[in-house]
Amino acid sequence: METINHPTLLVNETICQNNLRRMASKAKRNGAVLRPHFKTHQSAEIGKWAMEADIEGITVSSVRMALAFAQAGWKSITVAFPANLREMEAINQLAATTELRLIINNSYTATKLEEELKHPVQFYIEINSGQQRSGLAPDALEAIDSILQVAARTPLLHFYGFYSHPGHTYSTHTLAAVTQLYQEVEEMLLPLKERYIKSNPELKLCVGDTPGSSRVENLQAFDELSPGNFVFYDMQQLHKGACSWQDIALSVACPVVDVYPSRNEAIIYGGAVHFSKDFYLQADGSQSFGQMVWLNETGWSAPVQGAYLRGLSQEHGVLTAPGEVIQQLKPGQLIGLLPPHSCLAADLIRSYYHLEKKSTFRAFSLA
Amino acid sequence: METINHPTLLVNETICQNNLRRMASKAKRNGAVLRPHFKTHQSAEIGKWAMEADIEGITVSSVRMALAFAQAGWKSITVAFPANLREMEAINQLAATTELRLIINNSYTATKLEEELKHPVQFYIEINSGQQRSGLAPDALEAIDSILQVAARTPLLHFYGFYSHPGHTYSTHTLAAVTQLYQEVEEMLLPLKERYIKSNPELKLCVGDTPGSSRVENLQAFDELSPGNFVFYDMQQLHKGACSWQDIALSVACPVVDVYPSRNEAIIYGGAVHFSKDFYLQADGSQSFGQMVWLNETGWSAPVQGAYLRGLSQEHGVLTAPGEVIQQLKPGQLIGLLPPHSCLAADLIRSYYHLEKKSTFRAFSLA
Repeated sequence: METINHPTLLVNETICQNNLRRMASKAKRNGAVLRPHFKTHQSAEIGKWAMEADIEGITVSSVRMALAFAQAGWKSITVAFPANLREMEAINQLAATTELRLIINNSYTATKLEEELKHPVQFYIEINSGQQRSGLAPDALEAIDSILQVAARTPLLHFYGFYSHPGHTYSTHTLAAVTQLYQEVEEMLLPLKERYIKSNPELKLCVGDTPGSSRVENLQAFDELSPGNFVFYDMQQLHKGACSWQDIALSVACPVVDVYPSRNEAIIYGGAVHFSKDFYLQADGSQSFGQMVWLNETGWSAPVQGAYLRGLSQEHGVLTAPGEVIQQLKPGQLIGLLPPHSCLAADLIRSYYHLEKKSTFRAFSLA
Repeated sequence: METINHPTLLVNETICQNNLRRMASKAKRNGAVLRPHFKTHQSAEIGKWAMEADIEGITVSSVRMALAFAQAGWKSITVAFPANLREMEAINQLAATTELRLIINNSYTATKLEEELKHPVQFYIEINSGQQRSGLAPDALEAIDSILQVAARTPLLHFYGFYSHPGHTYSTHTLAAVTQLYQEVEEMLLPLKERYIKSNPELKLCVGDTPGSSRVENLQAFDELSPGNFVFYDMQQLHKGACSWQDIALSVACPVVDVYPSRNEAIIYGGAVHFSKDFYLQADGSQSFGQMVWLNETGWSAPVQGAYLRGLSQEHGVLTAPGEVIQQLKPGQLIGLLPPHSCLAADLIRSYYHLEKKSTFRAFSLA
């Protein structure tokens, strides 16, 4: 860690492995298969830890990411993003060698795929279960049927099931609220399963989001779970009650560059190009762009109360902290920050320091 | 443009050159030198356009960026970020071959530099003129003197002047407000210049931010200007009145992947990993994460009224638009988005399509 001179991801493999195993056994208990979302880490190395937890299929958010993980040896990959017709060449390349699952939400895309696919793919139809992002309304039976009509006339498109990302769990903070929300998702998806399973006996329901998969105990309505963030967790998840601070497997080591004792603040090398501009609201309503921890030989301390990034610009982070914390800081020192959103910090920084092995590895270069 | 299949920066060189020339002549009119901030584009190619506009010195936000631009041929580089003591090796490497200017805001850092520098560097002391990020208060004379005392005992540290980033101009929206704010910055910096020029006859005042440099007419108090964003501008600048839409030189080409006519929305491939999570507030108070434009042979149209990204997740952008716009969209089509904050979009995407030359080039790989 001595040689770290710029914002660097610190990853604790033991915690990641525990998070993976816990989620895998929860899926198993519910009769579901865990297909973790690898957009969170974008790393072949961390992918191997999932293999060790007996994960066989994965989820990604782009065709580029699918190509990278296919090259890293993964054989069953869901691209949980509406099929992008401008990437037909790569889709065909993937379909030739992997069990590829796409998302198709309209018959226009289905027809184009029918025309241009060279190898069979499976597909989900995505249902908008309340997040209001992509996906058809649960009652859009005409639109669903029009996609299935296209699929029925080609062996290249195999209807696999319904996919939903209940991302509106991110605005819940209590167990009761997230459980209630999942109950509603069930009530939207189960009638669709019932309706379409007659002609598609293998039909699956797949959902995935970290707050729901972590907190809701009964997930038996679902056949597959595809959360991603849980491998690392982060401050947003902690504040939603989806994890404890001991479950957070990723922090960012940042050099202190200026200390301002008179205003109880310090400046760190670590800004929007390392953390993104995502934040979470603290108990007092203030925005935090990262929670300070002390670094030590094996990792980091508990969150330092009252010590957080109150603002970010491109490379600067403004740390506010109690006087006794600020007094311990010196320019050139490394401190740790638990990121608001670990997926975005990992996407931006891309360079991991493995705490147990004391070595570094990188995420794929996809940009 | 036909081959673009993922979110890609489109850059209009003519507009960039005009923006550069306009800012350079404004600096000249005010008796100041323009040292543009290259964090905005991080590209050797776009750097060359500045060379063509007779720019001789530049500003960057990290030592890594300084190394990249030094390798691209730049000889005078300001790292406008508090000196990071963990990068001494790279600082020495830069100091050996370029005219390097650092920022030193405390005597601890000055003393460490005194001990570890092998080649002379120039330095600014940064003044916090109201943004409350890094920099000393204008009345922190004791702290300033303690830095100058260290510098006085070594030929390796040459005091160059005072630097200030009046980033609080980003919360002004009227010409009167930004002019008033610059008046206050002048009133903070001029007494410092007066006080310290006696013992430092070459002392300079450098300020830089795009809203101020673009809008304030009288900048004669300052010797150097270091804005960055103005080379591209963006929607945040447009909404602050710092540019017209015709001055915006950068858009992001994004594939449409889903169209939902019933809710007047579409999903694009383009999310937080392309735009960051920065936004601007529209006239009605709603957040926009990007403004839609139509793409054409030579670039893009005027902003399409009422068509903007209302939300982003990792790779998804949710476009909301009037019905007649949504009706014209098809999956697989490319549309343009003017980003809220072009520096962050450029940092994330890193791949530029040059509209006039119809060729691509990349930003440096710094992550």
